[in-house]
Amino acid sequence: MKDPINFMAKLENFSDLWAPKVIAEMNDYQFKLVKIAGDFVSHRHAHTDEVFIVLEGKMNIEFENEIVEINTGEMIVVPKGEKHKPFAKEECKIMLVEPTGVVNTGDAGGELTAPDNQWI
Amino acid sequence: MKDPINFMAKLENFSDLWAPKVIAEMNDYQFKLVKIAGDFVSHRHAHTDEVFIVLEGKMNIEFENEIVEINTGEMIVVPKGEKHKPFAKEECKIMLVEPTGVVNTGDAGGELTAPDNQWI
Repeated sequence: MKDPINFMAKLENFSDLWAPKVIAEMNDYQFKLVKIAGDFVSHRHAHTDEVFIVLEGKMNIEFENEIVEINTGEMIVVPKGEKHKPFAKEECKIMLVEPTGVVNTGDAGGELTAPDNQWI
Repeated sequence: MKDPINFMAKLENFSDLWAPKVIAEMNDYQFKLVKIAGDFVSHRHAHTDEVFIVLEGKMNIEFENEIVEINTGEMIVVPKGEKHKPFAKEECKIMLVEPTGVVNTGDAGGELTAPDNQWI
């Protein structure tokens, strides 16, 4: 049996922030849900672009020369190698799309680094 | 300037059915919006999985042994090589995620084959 994956139902399964949870895999890419609030660390992913889709709420990404606001029903592609700092004033629910094995803090590391490949 | 991509705003730019429009590229993958209604042709993609995300409405995918219903806020991964026939009783707005260059009718071909790489 193939079951569709319901974003809001999956989001009810966790409450920790900045800790991506995998909900689906397509080839060698993963779809991950994340709840975010406050500031993340500025970082870059040397080997891949990264997609952010806002499912509920509002978030920002600070790039080197601009700050972009992303609202519910919007997405953005962060280009490979580009420094970006996600942040959100209030809790925001997002979906990431990126290759399997991408570490959330990229080159920055540190205490916000989340375990990889956590399925819900 | 990086602009977020708004799904509903992009959907207002076209009305043809079963004709995927590219809105974003991540590495060698594309995000495509499609409006669907009625029956599509049963087909398979020999070399890749394919993701369907329902943005508005309700659709079904008929597989060899089951029919799956996918509603707003849900996604499904169609496995590589697996026969599937998408259909929708009423118009449904969806997003596809798949590698660049995937033909919408896969191995089936025919008159529903849409031009590739149409950006909006």
